[in-house]
Amino acid sequence: MTGREECQTADRDDALRALRDRFRLPPDVIYLDGNSLGPLVETVPDRMTSAVEREWGEGLIRSWNTAGWIDLAEGVAARIEALIGAPQTTVAVGDSTSVNLFKVVEAAIGLRPDRRFVVTDRGNFPTDLYVLSGVCQRAGLVLEVVEPTDVIEAICDDTAVVSLTEVDYRTGRRHDMRRVTEAAHSAGALAVWDLAHSAGAFPVDVAENAVDFAVGCGYKYLNGGPGAPGFLYVAPGLADGWSNPIRGWFGHARPFAFELEFEPAEGVIRGQIGTPPILSMVALHESLSVFDGVDLVAVRAKSLALTDLFIELVGEYLPDFTIVTPREHERRGSQVSLRHPEGYSIVQALIARGVIGDFRAPDILRFGFAPLYVGFEDTFRAVEQLREVMSGEEWRDPRFAAVARVT
Amino acid sequence: MTGREECQTADRDDALRALRDRFRLPPDVIYLDGNSLGPLVETVPDRMTSAVEREWGEGLIRSWNTAGWIDLAEGVAARIEALIGAPQTTVAVGDSTSVNLFKVVEAAIGLRPDRRFVVTDRGNFPTDLYVLSGVCQRAGLVLEVVEPTDVIEAICDDTAVVSLTEVDYRTGRRHDMRRVTEAAHSAGALAVWDLAHSAGAFPVDVAENAVDFAVGCGYKYLNGGPGAPGFLYVAPGLADGWSNPIRGWFGHARPFAFELEFEPAEGVIRGQIGTPPILSMVALHESLSVFDGVDLVAVRAKSLALTDLFIELVGEYLPDFTIVTPREHERRGSQVSLRHPEGYSIVQALIARGVIGDFRAPDILRFGFAPLYVGFEDTFRAVEQLREVMSGEEWRDPRFAAVARVT
Repeated sequence: MTGREECQTADRDDALRALRDRFRLPPDVIYLDGNSLGPLVETVPDRMTSAVEREWGEGLIRSWNTAGWIDLAEGVAARIEALIGAPQTTVAVGDSTSVNLFKVVEAAIGLRPDRRFVVTDRGNFPTDLYVLSGVCQRAGLVLEVVEPTDVIEAICDDTAVVSLTEVDYRTGRRHDMRRVTEAAHSAGALAVWDLAHSAGAFPVDVAENAVDFAVGCGYKYLNGGPGAPGFLYVAPGLADGWSNPIRGWFGHARPFAFELEFEPAEGVIRGQIGTPPILSMVALHESLSVFDGVDLVAVRAKSLALTDLFIELVGEYLPDFTIVTPREHERRGSQVSLRHPEGYSIVQALIARGVIGDFRAPDILRFGFAPLYVGFEDTFRAVEQLREVMSGEEWRDPRFAAVARVT
Repeated sequence: MTGREECQTADRDDALRALRDRFRLPPDVIYLDGNSLGPLVETVPDRMTSAVEREWGEGLIRSWNTAGWIDLAEGVAARIEALIGAPQTTVAVGDSTSVNLFKVVEAAIGLRPDRRFVVTDRGNFPTDLYVLSGVCQRAGLVLEVVEPTDVIEAICDDTAVVSLTEVDYRTGRRHDMRRVTEAAHSAGALAVWDLAHSAGAFPVDVAENAVDFAVGCGYKYLNGGPGAPGFLYVAPGLADGWSNPIRGWFGHARPFAFELEFEPAEGVIRGQIGTPPILSMVALHESLSVFDGVDLVAVRAKSLALTDLFIELVGEYLPDFTIVTPREHERRGSQVSLRHPEGYSIVQALIARGVIGDFRAPDILRFGFAPLYVGFEDTFRAVEQLREVMSGEEWRDPRFAAVARVT
């Protein structure tokens, strides 16, 4: 399937195709950056207007009860639990992914007090590495940052925690969560997974894989909006034994009793800290409704078909690009990354043509394939546009030259 | 001034009166709970719609640059700096107040490594006490929780940090920030202030008072919306020496270089951690525009006049209530608290009449007087309604009986 008509047929036959209409995507855009910021779900604007004007504006303080703000984070958590194979009441939502990682890694090393090492890899997202280095420095532990292929070998009887992101944000390479977690457990260590590029992209099963702690991001494949709250997962077996290093009133057993002494709430709820950002939480809650009734096995099948197609087309027509993402399905997330020395300018030229991917220094072009709204013809057209950018050397245009920038 | 006509005259003469129209308050409500959740600023709904539909929906990932999301937190910080007497680039915005307190208290004790005590008081907000007890337990320090009047006496040469909330959330009692900070410094300790009930309510001058660290809340007198991001302040003299215990990419010197090693950003920016909740940040940013050109000295004068009036009227007409808030102006925040054994039901009956205050166990009725939108006749009418609730024993109605609840 590498022709336009075949792609159109595949779109027509796509059982997930109707989901695309749940998103408000600009008509002139092919959006391949949902791994960085998911697009707007069509019902979110009305829901936000209602939250702002009716709940906040008219309900005022009463809306904590009457509009259910007080239970909103738990409602979001329930929707995320369904996406990551987590039992009920094992997920808490709030704070950023970085803060959540801090909480669970501090908790995890606290559960392995006599061990000296934390293992991670160089493919981890930098903020994860920063959190880990800070935690290790404070606790007097050694952080081992190894190559992704060397993680299992690096685990030893003195390893307290293995903390990894399942899918590499640059390369799209996916770890074998089960195998690494088993290796950690065999050595008596705990496994902490960052699901930032996993949750909502394909089936995740934290319970089946015996994951100890996990965190994840609300604004990528969960489409919760810019800076949407993150989440954390605590395995049921650790629910009563873990401690959140940051004690806050939303993690108290009785927050509104305003007691002077801290008593942690049961289970994962002690992972909450302060008042959650309700407006951002409302957007995330509404966005997650898109997943109601969606079969993540089908999502994964489509993701693999889309990324296979993209890899095939790039291999056929764009020999100057190195395909960085693994060809093996089980080692691939839901993105394809290419390497090219002029990657920055090429991505800018593509964006100017309405094909939105992104760039990661020094030379990586990233393309995310979120199966809920990306189709086969989109993928075909994206490669077509990339070919045009390359054949006319359009990327050499000075307006696409590298400047200080942010994505 | 205790008659209705006098109050109406005072409203007409009020130089701040026009600000009331900047808020969208329900017509049938007298809102005396802005110390818990500030009301909706009239321009916020349009700003939010634009952020959701145009910036997120159409701009997608590009809006980090094109809509200025990347600089948004610093724009909010600049507005808060102006309200709390902070020099430029000494405030960072993001995370909850609790998380911000964790950061700065951890940093402060790190700067006084050989000292054993942290001093706070029983009037501190419970989440502050929880944060402090957690930090102390982790660091092997002793947390001394004394009566508010005993704080200065409790400070000794072995005190690392004094951490207080300036205005007591229950009683409205205000600390002498300058005197306590001086006492802390005289003993070689650092002073950390929580400005949750101060910022936006009256002039605060962290620089003039030589405060070391401060935190504050975005959703009370700053009107930023439910769960709005909090802020932190770091004194210029500590800017290069302080460490955020939670290292995140938004606190890195070059977040978008995606370097493996952490290098803290300059000054207060290292207080940032993860991606900020943009939708909540947009609401806070827009809400703060109300303060442009507002003289906080005039705000304070009006606040004292309103709370004086309320105290006088309650004293005159409602002898069954104990006035908990200090009569002395310099010891008062911007709220008045009353004590009554049936406080819970009385507050519910008042709310049913459209006068929104709140209740704090076991017997405190709280009334916040935010001078930007509360007037003199409002105050008169609130007492009038309270008198009617009491004279008819309306509060005995079973629908106002205490049940499990939250505000």
